Amino acid sequence: MPALKGATVPIHFGSFIVTPQVFLQTPLSFALVNLKPILPGHVLVCPRRVVSRVSNLTPAETSDLFLTVRRVSRMIERVYGASSLNIAIQDGVHAGQSVPHVHAHIIPRKAADLDHRGGTDAVYDLLDGEEGDVGKAFRDAQSATPDTPAQDQRTTSRFPAVDNEQRKPRSLEEMCAEAHMLANEMEKEPVE
Amino acid sequence: MPALKGATVPIHFGSFIVTPQVFLQTPLSFALVNLKPILPGHVLVCPRRVVSRVSNLTPAETSDLFLTVRRVSRMIERVYGASSLNIAIQDGVHAGQSVPHVHAHIIPRKAADLDHRGGTDAVYDLLDGEEGDVGKAFRDAQSATPDTPAQDQRTTSRFPAVDNEQRKPRSLEEMCAEAHMLANEMEKEPVE
Repeated sequence: MPALKGATVPIHFGSFIVTPQVFLQTPLSFALVNLKPILPGHVLVCPRRVVSRVSNLTPAETSDLFLTVRRVSRMIERVYGASSLNIAIQDGVHAGQSVPHVHAHIIPRKAADLDHRGGTDAVYDLLDGEEGDVGKAFRDAQSATPDTPAQDQRTTSRFPAVDNEQRKPRSLEEMCAEAHMLANEMEKEPVE
Repeated sequence: MPALKGATVPIHFGSFIVTPQVFLQTPLSFALVNLKPILPGHVLVCPRRVVSRVSNLTPAETSDLFLTVRRVSRMIERVYGASSLNIAIQDGVHAGQSVPHVHAHIIPRKAADLDHRGGTDAVYDLLDGEEGDVGKAFRDAQSATPDTPAQDQRTTSRFPAVDNEQRKPRSLEEMCAEAHMLANEMEKEPVE
């Protein structure tokens, strides 16, 4: 069941249908929870129209996208008890973009939250390593069958794991539950 | 001499005056060249008002800032012959922010441009390492005297260099020249 009651039209992230993961829709943008967040509360904000580059956005889409980033950022910081946020766009394949659909990563941060991974800046290694490869995560998930769920398939992926950290692709149920929770939390945020 | 002919009021980036480095002003935002770009064409876009967090921006400031990011991105990609861009905001100190004034990094990217530094994603190590510490770079530059220019002071900084790469803080003249060039190039870009 979609997190958004009014979401009857499938919502696309690149070629993937992500309707159950979407927790906010605006006239020109949407926000979704991540299949494999690199920190709790790591979400994505996208234009509704599937375009690959920021320069492809219209002025209206650009404003709507970043007003949505700002609204979602406030909510994420509150709900996940963060004190800072990383906001990042890999705008094009040579900047590390893995799904050809503009997406702003919002990653809530706290003091010392990545000390065990190498410090504050380890967020970028995670974002750009296999762990943050949203394209691969979605491909893995959509190729999974009930008998071979995504979590199992990942370990037999032709892309080897690049570290020994625990991998955490999430179930659809878990993502839906978070999307529902965040959809409710968004209603507490002022629109402006 | 400022790159912008009309720039009579000093422009602040945090506590630093950056007027000669500014190549674009809009009603609510400005764009400046970097003291120590991590790749050629690495520039910053800021709101005129000195606020530390994206959530502090008004809706009008948010729209203006990201419409400016989009316009500057197009110009930078064209002028520096790039094929992609990294766009990143360290929103708060625990996300790596070094100057408490909202600033979007725009970093032009090409295929294999950072292979010698470890690959596509090395941009983030550079951004968040000492090399991308805009606060430290500005502090160094403004504490320099004519007899001990910033470039020399850096080597005696109490912050040790964290790697053996060549350090390239730039002279005011070099930054001014680039800001002038980019101000001219901005005039070739459509406003929308």
